[in-house]
Amino acid sequence: MTDDAPTDPPDGGPDESSHLVGEGVARREDAALLTGDATFTDDVDAADLAYLTFVRSEEAHAEIESVDATAAASIDGVLAVYTWDDIAASDVPGVLPISTHGLDCDPPGHPVLARDRVRYQGQPIAAVVAEDRYRARDAADAVEVVSDPLPAVVDQREAQEPDAPTVYEDAPDNVAAVSELGNADATDEAVAAADRVVEVDLTNNRLIPNALEPRAAVARWDAGDERLTVEMTSQSPHGHRGKLSTTLGLPESDIRVVAPSVGGGFGHKGHHHPGEAAAAFAAMDLDRPVKWTATRSENYFAGAHGRDHRTRAELAVDDDGTIRGLRVETDADVGGYGLGGSLSMPGWYGSLLSSQYDVPAIHCETRAVFTNTTPIHSYRGAGRPEANYVAERLVGAAARELDFDPAELRRTNQITDFPHETAVGATYDSGDYELGLDEALDAAGWDDLRDRPNRDDEGRYLGVGLACYVESTGGGHESGVVRAHPDGTVTVYAGTHSHGQGHGTTYAQIVADELGIDYDDIDVNEGDSDATPTGTGTFGSRSTITGGNAVAESARAVREKARKFAANLLDAPEDAIEYEAGEFAAPEHTDDTCSFADVAEAAYGWGVPEGMDPGLEATTFFEQEDTAYTFGTHVVAVAVDPETGAVDIERYVALDDCGERVNPTIVEGQVEGGVAQGIGQARYEAAVYADDGTLQTDSMLDYAVPRSFHVPDIQTEATVTPSPTNDLGVKGIGEAGTIAAPPAVVNAVCDALEPLGIAHVDMPLTEERVWSAIRDAKE
Amino acid sequence: MTDDAPTDPPDGGPDESSHLVGEGVARREDAALLTGDATFTDDVDAADLAYLTFVRSEEAHAEIESVDATAAASIDGVLAVYTWDDIAASDVPGVLPISTHGLDCDPPGHPVLARDRVRYQGQPIAAVVAEDRYRARDAADAVEVVSDPLPAVVDQREAQEPDAPTVYEDAPDNVAAVSELGNADATDEAVAAADRVVEVDLTNNRLIPNALEPRAAVARWDAGDERLTVEMTSQSPHGHRGKLSTTLGLPESDIRVVAPSVGGGFGHKGHHHPGEAAAAFAAMDLDRPVKWTATRSENYFAGAHGRDHRTRAELAVDDDGTIRGLRVETDADVGGYGLGGSLSMPGWYGSLLSSQYDVPAIHCETRAVFTNTTPIHSYRGAGRPEANYVAERLVGAAARELDFDPAELRRTNQITDFPHETAVGATYDSGDYELGLDEALDAAGWDDLRDRPNRDDEGRYLGVGLACYVESTGGGHESGVVRAHPDGTVTVYAGTHSHGQGHGTTYAQIVADELGIDYDDIDVNEGDSDATPTGTGTFGSRSTITGGNAVAESARAVREKARKFAANLLDAPEDAIEYEAGEFAAPEHTDDTCSFADVAEAAYGWGVPEGMDPGLEATTFFEQEDTAYTFGTHVVAVAVDPETGAVDIERYVALDDCGERVNPTIVEGQVEGGVAQGIGQARYEAAVYADDGTLQTDSMLDYAVPRSFHVPDIQTEATVTPSPTNDLGVKGIGEAGTIAAPPAVVNAVCDALEPLGIAHVDMPLTEERVWSAIRDAKE
Repeated sequence: MTDDAPTDPPDGGPDESSHLVGEGVARREDAALLTGDATFTDDVDAADLAYLTFVRSEEAHAEIESVDATAAASIDGVLAVYTWDDIAASDVPGVLPISTHGLDCDPPGHPVLARDRVRYQGQPIAAVVAEDRYRARDAADAVEVVSDPLPAVVDQREAQEPDAPTVYEDAPDNVAAVSELGNADATDEAVAAADRVVEVDLTNNRLIPNALEPRAAVARWDAGDERLTVEMTSQSPHGHRGKLSTTLGLPESDIRVVAPSVGGGFGHKGHHHPGEAAAAFAAMDLDRPVKWTATRSENYFAGAHGRDHRTRAELAVDDDGTIRGLRVETDADVGGYGLGGSLSMPGWYGSLLSSQYDVPAIHCETRAVFTNTTPIHSYRGAGRPEANYVAERLVGAAARELDFDPAELRRTNQITDFPHETAVGATYDSGDYELGLDEALDAAGWDDLRDRPNRDDEGRYLGVGLACYVESTGGGHESGVVRAHPDGTVTVYAGTHSHGQGHGTTYAQIVADELGIDYDDIDVNEGDSDATPTGTGTFGSRSTITGGNAVAESARAVREKARKFAANLLDAPEDAIEYEAGEFAAPEHTDDTCSFADVAEAAYGWGVPEGMDPGLEATTFFEQEDTAYTFGTHVVAVAVDPETGAVDIERYVALDDCGERVNPTIVEGQVEGGVAQGIGQARYEAAVYADDGTLQTDSMLDYAVPRSFHVPDIQTEATVTPSPTNDLGVKGIGEAGTIAAPPAVVNAVCDALEPLGIAHVDMPLTEERVWSAIRDAKE
Repeated sequence: MTDDAPTDPPDGGPDESSHLVGEGVARREDAALLTGDATFTDDVDAADLAYLTFVRSEEAHAEIESVDATAAASIDGVLAVYTWDDIAASDVPGVLPISTHGLDCDPPGHPVLARDRVRYQGQPIAAVVAEDRYRARDAADAVEVVSDPLPAVVDQREAQEPDAPTVYEDAPDNVAAVSELGNADATDEAVAAADRVVEVDLTNNRLIPNALEPRAAVARWDAGDERLTVEMTSQSPHGHRGKLSTTLGLPESDIRVVAPSVGGGFGHKGHHHPGEAAAAFAAMDLDRPVKWTATRSENYFAGAHGRDHRTRAELAVDDDGTIRGLRVETDADVGGYGLGGSLSMPGWYGSLLSSQYDVPAIHCETRAVFTNTTPIHSYRGAGRPEANYVAERLVGAAARELDFDPAELRRTNQITDFPHETAVGATYDSGDYELGLDEALDAAGWDDLRDRPNRDDEGRYLGVGLACYVESTGGGHESGVVRAHPDGTVTVYAGTHSHGQGHGTTYAQIVADELGIDYDDIDVNEGDSDATPTGTGTFGSRSTITGGNAVAESARAVREKARKFAANLLDAPEDAIEYEAGEFAAPEHTDDTCSFADVAEAAYGWGVPEGMDPGLEATTFFEQEDTAYTFGTHVVAVAVDPETGAVDIERYVALDDCGERVNPTIVEGQVEGGVAQGIGQARYEAAVYADDGTLQTDSMLDYAVPRSFHVPDIQTEATVTPSPTNDLGVKGIGEAGTIAAPPAVVNAVCDALEPLGIAHVDMPLTEERVWSAIRDAKE
């Protein structure tokens, strides 16, 4: 933590002294979230609410022979047992749509209930709806599924072997899609011409998102209006509306998606899962509200997983440290059903493989591979952590082979001129990479850490590592409405949806500054697809850029319209109007003043001035035309106990530059949370499958999410390079920690173990793995 | 009924042949409304829903000495018993606000629960909340109210006598406000100069609105968001939001008002009653949802009443039939609490006192008078029926005194040039009054009816009457949003709210024509103050003018934006784009075409063309700068049985001109419904108070709403004079029947009874009253 403690907001006003943007205003949403007053989806209650539970496949790969619901349906309180046959007999398509984002492939969709085959353990086969969740669970256990097991494949490289089991008959090699990026010939030449080629073979471990709140949905069907409302754990209410439209065969105008308070998303809640679609199907069929809530274990079995890359990579580098080229070949597991995020990720992945470095030639081939595992989707970072892990582990390995100070090798290759177009066509907008590196090294005491002896008094091996990163942030469009009410209070609507990010605070800061009114008079409303024009959602570190600029632009339009009304109220020419701290004046024309609330009252009054439109609101569809690239450097010092394999992170410095910081306290919180998740990936977390496709890590007992004492003190530092891509000068920060932390931690541990000749340990660096590596090295 | 039977809509398209505006498209809302699928407020259910019931005053005027809730509170299932002390101890102001619309008065507000005095029978004294409505009712009966009765006054003329009981100490003459309109001196001169002065002394009887659905509200408090949601029977969700904001002391940004299906309004559901405020207070206090639903009797005792004018009027007229001046003095009862509608009605009232006639001098004085009766508010017509009754009864009386054919006297004075500014400053926009009169007379067979003998074979007296009218329609502003979704379906949001008017059909017709897409792809959504920018609401025959033009303007903006996207998709210049039946083409540039849905998909896609804003929607705040004046002539033929006083309406012709008719079937339905209510006022309905303020007509047994067999066949005819005040050329039609029918019916009965020397019978013309008048005349 830095000294930027949260503060109470000063009174709002448009003059320089009262700017809220840049202040660490205390998050207004926390009181409700922390005291239980917030309404999460599972808190949503309704009269006649019924409960839906899935019957899930126990096998990872099997033909479904029969599903007998007779016993289940006869249980008292059971309202319905649905199988694919019920969906097939309805008007509902019942297959979750796939977004391939331009990839040349046609992967099959995920049926809401298994059609004839299951392709991962936990895939829904039937859905039971009952008067309460306990009877639904009992009835689900009474559904008799007869299936014929098939051999399973759980590894994306093995899946491409000729004799591997086949997940889909029309993809005999299990490859769902291949994407190429960059120039193969130029890269071959660079590799051939360079003094040396450094190679790595890396696993980016499969992770299971662990939001505090599991996924859930409450669906209601209004038979009178023929309209569906789904309250659900969503990062993207409009996105889910579109996906539900396809799955259910309803026009978008007949669907409303509402996301109440959402307890963490991490990408996971941007995806379309069978649960919300099944609840909607049942609500329409039964004409009563239906709730579905995943248990933690169901989240593990059947909620989208993240990462799971196997990568071979080569860095062509000259002896003077100059990087000449980069070649990457990645097998990306997409699980049993390749859905949106997993297939579209290669684009984000490939464009960030060169981190902060000027790499003249890059080639990347990514194969999306089916296996009998839970579908993979984008997970906090969504391709960026995978890319940066490859880049920063390679540079780390190169420094070692070249005997360079790792910081020095990075500095040698850092991009210095902006905008900079990379060899794969990404245009980095702005930055001062060297300054960021220097400040991070200074803050960490890099030279002192490098000068430490190899081992401490307790015999632990000491190491220090670093990772730089570049993160593509923002993208797409977002709607923002600023609506003044007749009493002068303001509601801000945005198509993003906060699931921990604190938009209620940051957007209010932005609008308070633009409108010059009191922060407390500004409400922020997200998550209702009826109330907001459109929305792309909150993911990809995009909300402050797209949503923030959308509401800022709308606020400016409202202010200008208010000025016109004020000119009329004060009977003064518009260009004579001055505005300060919520009061309009025209000192050269009148001693009268009028407040923003006076203007609002006039704007909605009966009969507005000739030539004026009534109302005081504006809607902006903000399109971010150019990506904003956040960057930073994280430095880690570790001590490794050779007797136990225990790694102690003694120092963690995170230097991040996300341009202008609307709320530095929230930025720091994002960095800390991201680093905690990055440390989780680096040290503790991994989804493990047995060869038959059985998930071994199916609960928190086996899947080790870091607890608070596993996360070290994180020193957050910042440089500020405003982005020229948007008026606010902001860049995204939501994923930085997950991108920088894994290579920084692994580089530090490998540095510590260098005296033992250990160049690499696969994530997660559990005590057992580190101990085994040390034992193997000593043998 | 005319021959314009409802039709199925043809496929939409922008070409001439597929215009829906002007077609009698079958109302899409009726299936749900008629089969029970619609959700009315009392259908709204919620988990943990509690029920609120009022303890109401049995006395019309009393000091409250004490309220003892001990016994009530001890009843099992009772959650709270509230009195004014609870409101006073809270942050909630608890007084319903008053809108005086510029009148020079400061009338007291209506406390949600009686403070120390009650001023009408049925005024709420305490509110009981319990687990179900039956226990709430039992507990309400157990609340012990001790009160000290005061003398009551129930007649607005008696209330102004020196010795009358005083409703408010600071208004000793019980006059709440006096409004004057027109020129007293000019009118005195006209009266002095005219050949003759015709006088009437009229009662416009007090009515009790009888919507199918009584008022109701379900309030919820979200403690996390600190936001109140009130679902309620509202004609004006944004209006109620503003009023609740004042009553509850909450900013408008913290309140959402949702009106689900509403079963009739008639003005009654535009007003702010204690019920919704008390339910909100209880929901916030108890932190659980609270429902309040008025019983039919409670609607009678304590729902706002309508009309109740006592008027002396003089018409100065020359022997050749030329009207020279009009003097009107009206005592308008506002009941125990003068609230919005009753105080602001004089404006609408006074400006229409000259009906269709060129009256050079007018003076009107209106006194709003407190009595110990239920508060009066605007009721279908809101001042216009009261005004037209005076005008058309006066002209009827003048025709009789001058021995003119009543049609001829009207024709002599009809305004012929438009726009026409009246002597009280109203500007009639357009019309062809003489044509309307002629067509109505023709359709009714006026001359034949006039030529009938005085009595028929059964001895019944035969009569024929007519009434012309002018109705001010529209006014204020309205918001309309047209939002295309990514799949090309469209949702229309409007700030009006249909409570029987069929906006779901008419707005979709308008937007289908403007957008050139299929009518079935257009949804209309009203009633949610969160989803719609702002709203004035549905009353005063304003929705098609203000809401219709708002959505039309937005649809045109969407079409133009779609054209730009189409030019980009077709790679053709924008001015080469042709659009027909939902397909864009550029035949001189390409054979490709793209649909409206293609454009919508592109507008919301990832990355829109350079220079284009993403999204495909538009918001219009439509301000109706000039009032549109609907007009018409209704002709009635009656037969009166002198033995029983029974009046048989043998013929009813309604000729109305509301400019362009978006949906003639709906227009005819509005006319028929209005005429039915007008016949109700003329013949059956009247609220009757005993001298002590006890309501005698406190149920449907005593208050006679016409049943279907009481309403004759109504022949609807139309002329069409498009209004120049708005692009659609429309005028309002919602209230016409209530304005024209009462004087037409009374004029016809008086015509029938002319042989007996009867010039006037007060409404309602019950059999008893007519029989008594005949008996008195014969004596």
